[in-house]
Amino acid sequence: MAGNTCGTLFRIMTWGESHGPALGVVIDGAPSGIPFTEAHVQSWMDRRKPGSAKTSTTRKEPDKARILSGVFEGKTTGTPISIMVENRDARSHNYDEIKELYRPGHGDFTYDAKYGFRDYRGGGRASARETVGRVAAASLAAEILKSEGISVTAATIELGGIEARRRDYSLVDENPYLCPDAEAALAMDQRVASVRSEGDSLGGVVEVVATGVPAGLGEPVFDKLDADLAAALMGIGAVKGVEIGAGFAAARMRGSENNDEMGEEGFLSNHAGGILAGISNGAPLVVRVGIKPIPSISKTQKTVNRSGEPSAIQTLGRHDISAIPRVNVVCEAMVTLVLADHFLRQKAVSWRR
Amino acid sequence: MAGNTCGTLFRIMTWGESHGPALGVVIDGAPSGIPFTEAHVQSWMDRRKPGSAKTSTTRKEPDKARILSGVFEGKTTGTPISIMVENRDARSHNYDEIKELYRPGHGDFTYDAKYGFRDYRGGGRASARETVGRVAAASLAAEILKSEGISVTAATIELGGIEARRRDYSLVDENPYLCPDAEAALAMDQRVASVRSEGDSLGGVVEVVATGVPAGLGEPVFDKLDADLAAALMGIGAVKGVEIGAGFAAARMRGSENNDEMGEEGFLSNHAGGILAGISNGAPLVVRVGIKPIPSISKTQKTVNRSGEPSAIQTLGRHDISAIPRVNVVCEAMVTLVLADHFLRQKAVSWRR
Amino acid sequence: MAGNTCGTLFRIMTWGESHGPALGVVIDGAPSGIPFTEAHVQSWMDRRKPGSAKTSTTRKEPDKARILSGVFEGKTTGTPISIMVENRDARSHNYDEIKELYRPGHGDFTYDAKYGFRDYRGGGRASARETVGRVAAASLAAEILKSEGISVTAATIELGGIEARRRDYSLVDENPYLCPDAEAALAMDQRVASVRSEGDSLGGVVEVVATGVPAGLGEPVFDKLDADLAAALMGIGAVKGVEIGAGFAAARMRGSENNDEMGEEGFLSNHAGGILAGISNGAPLVVRVGIKPIPSISKTQKTVNRSGEPSAIQTLGRHDISAIPRVNVVCEAMVTLVLADHFLRQKAVSWRR
Amino acid sequence: MAGNTCGTLFRIMTWGESHGPALGVVIDGAPSGIPFTEAHVQSWMDRRKPGSAKTSTTRKEPDKARILSGVFEGKTTGTPISIMVENRDARSHNYDEIKELYRPGHGDFTYDAKYGFRDYRGGGRASARETVGRVAAASLAAEILKSEGISVTAATIELGGIEARRRDYSLVDENPYLCPDAEAALAMDQRVASVRSEGDSLGGVVEVVATGVPAGLGEPVFDKLDADLAAALMGIGAVKGVEIGAGFAAARMRGSENNDEMGEEGFLSNHAGGILAGISNGAPLVVRVGIKPIPSISKTQKTVNRSGEPSAIQTLGRHDISAIPRVNVVCEAMVTLVLADHFLRQKAVSWRR
Repeated sequence: MAGNTCGTLFRIMTWGESHGPALGVVIDGAPSGIPFTEAHVQSWMDRRKPGSAKTSTTRKEPDKARILSGVFEGKTTGTPISIMVENRDARSHNYDEIKELYRPGHGDFTYDAKYGFRDYRGGGRASARETVGRVAAASLAAEILKSEGISVTAATIELGGIEARRRDYSLVDENPYLCPDAEAALAMDQRVASVRSEGDSLGGVVEVVATGVPAGLGEPVFDKLDADLAAALMGIGAVKGVEIGAGFAAARMRGSENNDEMGEEGFLSNHAGGILAGISNGAPLVVRVGIKPIPSISKTQKTVNRSGEPSAIQTLGRHDISAIPRVNVVCEAMVTLVLADHFLRQKAVSWRR
Repeated sequence: MAGNTCGTLFRIMTWGESHGPALGVVIDGAPSGIPFTEAHVQSWMDRRKPGSAKTSTTRKEPDKARILSGVFEGKTTGTPISIMVENRDARSHNYDEIKELYRPGHGDFTYDAKYGFRDYRGGGRASARETVGRVAAASLAAEILKSEGISVTAATIELGGIEARRRDYSLVDENPYLCPDAEAALAMDQRVASVRSEGDSLGGVVEVVATGVPAGLGEPVFDKLDADLAAALMGIGAVKGVEIGAGFAAARMRGSENNDEMGEEGFLSNHAGGILAGISNGAPLVVRVGIKPIPSISKTQKTVNRSGEPSAIQTLGRHDISAIPRVNVVCEAMVTLVLADHFLRQKAVSWRR
Repeated sequence: MAGNTCGTLFRIMTWGESHGPALGVVIDGAPSGIPFTEAHVQSWMDRRKPGSAKTSTTRKEPDKARILSGVFEGKTTGTPISIMVENRDARSHNYDEIKELYRPGHGDFTYDAKYGFRDYRGGGRASARETVGRVAAASLAAEILKSEGISVTAATIELGGIEARRRDYSLVDENPYLCPDAEAALAMDQRVASVRSEGDSLGGVVEVVATGVPAGLGEPVFDKLDADLAAALMGIGAVKGVEIGAGFAAARMRGSENNDEMGEEGFLSNHAGGILAGISNGAPLVVRVGIKPIPSISKTQKTVNRSGEPSAIQTLGRHDISAIPRVNVVCEAMVTLVLADHFLRQKAVSWRR
Repeated sequence: MAGNTCGTLFRIMTWGESHGPALGVVIDGAPSGIPFTEAHVQSWMDRRKPGSAKTSTTRKEPDKARILSGVFEGKTTGTPISIMVENRDARSHNYDEIKELYRPGHGDFTYDAKYGFRDYRGGGRASARETVGRVAAASLAAEILKSEGISVTAATIELGGIEARRRDYSLVDENPYLCPDAEAALAMDQRVASVRSEGDSLGGVVEVVATGVPAGLGEPVFDKLDADLAAALMGIGAVKGVEIGAGFAAARMRGSENNDEMGEEGFLSNHAGGILAGISNGAPLVVRVGIKPIPSISKTQKTVNRSGEPSAIQTLGRHDISAIPRVNVVCEAMVTLVLADHFLRQKAVSWRR
């Protein structure tokens, strides 16, 4: 049933398949009067584009975003904003193989199980390309946050087992891996090259940090800020784990270590990652996601066809070695969307303060 | 704003504070005709009760659940089911200290920041006691799952750094830590005793496994099964991390390792934890949550009062050393609720199949 | 499926059957800091009580409302507010007849068709008594409106064909029919007496007027203010028609008559009933509902039993002759709930203005 | 805030302004496997097109609908279906006058009051053109209903005070007024011509009848079938009243007249209009809406400008005399959408029966 709506007040509905005519999003609930143009959307679209990173695909994706409604004279009108990106390379590919075979690690089998059949062209709705609409919507949500002094950044802190040992966020845009540690970025590059030559793929960890988040966002007990962030991030195709602040490491701490004491200047540490009892506490929001390795690999794998008969499959052509760093902007987008929604939710009930 | 509703078709709204007159839940959307009595609820309530585990509190909690509507002649009628548990020990305590001081690791500060003031008695709505309604609702959701052959179990696989090395689920109810490894349970007991003597507390990891889940549950791209599970579990007070299947470990695997190949018998491994592209794949569902150590400790900690002036605080009285094992049934409840909801969601659109 | 939730930001979930242990409501989303006590609820509960009006039932209903959560030191805390009313006369009646027979004009047949069976005691959830939760919730919504200068009044403008020819709202509380025309009230009394002696029942029209509503409430194009009001009112058991402003009479007007011209003082007429394009325009909100005659009559009527076999039925005992005036407070409650919700919805996106 | 989503399981989000680049809808929640093509959409689009009726506008609207996602090999895939209609005559008009003046009976004033400014071109989102998305979505919902034997028809039963005295639905498509009474259609034609010469406009009443609706649809107590129908219809721009079955006439009946008795063949009358206690009863669904006269008239009217200064306005150019018959397909669309949604909602909980 319906499951493509996200957000309560800043609500979006995304649509589109990998190789259909177009993809897009409708944003319902944006306040009126926010300056917003196709240039805003495009700047986010361009961040989805493969850069020089060797992890990246070589497919050309000159995604051009069009705003079809809800913006007048350069400002949002308060009515739904429809944004569309046409699929330019939606040309006829040869999908004969994946039409009948289930690719390991992909949604082919589950889409068939759920819907009875599937749009097999390039993964259809299960393709990473689905995130176009999310990113387009985030380009507007980001304008709301910016006007409130909230800033969100995603960084690669682990790739193929190489960990960033520093958090110099000024470096994130300086290397193709969006890594806050220049040295680690170099090591990642070598790891990627070596794994590429083996026809295999890599996973990693992305950390998203939001600063300037006011205390008070989050709606206990089910729409807590951490709960909504967890859903938003776990819903990204490649994500298999989400943790806030110290996360799983907190499970190995004592209370006396993990508790963030308070002083005149505020919290003296941030193991909570900016969220206490599901509500932002004014400290930086820190969320990490575990990204699984890309399932498309050129190594031969066992699988079955739609009739359940054993077969083997091998992904030909050039593919990304890792969802990172292309997934980073998607992680940033989802955190941005959740924060904008919760910001409005809190405004709805606190107007007298 | 409103944030106490969970689920789309099997929808619940919980209410109640730690030391108010009562707590409860209203379940809206349960199919009619399901056999359901107060005994069903009570059996789940009793699992929240401190057992012989030394981790457990010594407070008496003879929670008696009453069904106030929606059940007639022992069966659900299809109308809302209201379940209430009265707070028996809601007697006047001395809350003078926590009324003015923010306890580190608790929601005291954020509730004040959000709402302007708070019900400080025993943590109010931020208390673990809030979960009474969730568990009561799950006792009905479990009946739906049972009738479809779906079974959900939560087990402690790590406590205070002690890891279970086995997964013998038949042992879970045999030891006070709900641990599937008898040897580990003994070690946990020693760890708890030692930490108790230090006035500190412990965290751990709970794993929830669901078997019998049919392929096809989950609604891409925002209401994916893993996204909804992540929200449901991250929304539990003590949880700081959620992972599915291999989870964060997948971030360190190669694609060739992490991909679950398929054969005539189905999937040859289960790194996906039963979910592919946000849809259940028929393999066992495996979810793990990282539980932070209980913030209430008898060690003295720095804090501030409501005016921001530095102070110190120490939690007196007897307290749990860990949210585990009392949180386990809550984790199980949340997974149960999400599965029942998604089961109905899939029925809504697949009636012809 | 789930259908007992109303409102987006000021959201309520009601529960309870006519002859179950209790009925109630949970309010999720009320702003914190609103003064609210059981006395507020009780004052609305008492308006549901049969007064001296001869239309009223003679059953005693000393409904006592209890607030079980969400209020602390006399103010709302921002957490869910649970309000319960116990059914005092839920004693064992003799329902043998209506257990098997479908009462004409009642929901007996449709509840069986939908749910497979039903709680036949006193109509179960289809009883007018279901509205207890709505009215309890409105007692809080009314406090929000009051603090913003918004006032809502329901008046009987037609009963059994007798029309009020005046709209002197100061008279509404002066006569048992809540009629703004004293002369009409007397005629209504005679009509009621005569119909009572025939064992029949009457319908009528209730008008709800809200003053002080600011311009700008309503969310096009589906959650327009008039759309939400129509749903809220049509969802009351006895209502068969809803109209705004001139309503159906507008269908017979010319554009030049129906259009409300504007001048320096605002609108020069109010055929729109305070709503233009689904958004409040600052003029008084005027809504009317058509109330069908009470289906329980002592005249004998043809019906069938659960097996479809023809039979006859006659409602014994004393019954109301009309849902009016008891339904009036329910109409007022629903308008109050919708306005409070839309007031918060508009706050959520207009905080900068 | 967000208000452009309609439906729970068959959920749509519409977007687009009268003179923006395009309008459209995203349908989220349609079951997979339904045969659906652009021809289905187009057949409904064409019904919006002005026919030979003299009431109709002379503007050309060759609306071409494109399906951009969610359909593969001629069948729905279960993923969101995006449908877009480009605005061909979105050329630069002269809007200088309505940019500053509030047209009586239009949403100009309320849009400014709500959003601070507005897209004044042709009414923006408040234009009747907004309904393109609703009708496009209904073309798919209708396929679901058709496969279940449910049929929906809208007929003009009153226009400018001329009432249809017959209900011969076979005539509806035989005359330009979609009137089930050929004689009345002729009188309507004369009335329209005379009012057109006066530069004025007309309202009327549209009746929507649905046959084949199974008993059991509707979700008490807030999402009752009549409540959802009322919202769906009242949310259409020109609608000021909604009634079910006998509607307001029931307010003047005795219970003994209004109650629908039952016999072996089912209900012996249909004053309830197919709905009892908010649930369909298997009898034909009968809903009527009161349509206000079109506000754009060439007679001069008093108004104010954006600064509140008195002025006068007159709508030049050729305009429709009445929203009827163009609004009829919109009424039919909304009833179709509500029925498809409730059909799925009932399936979700009744799969065992």
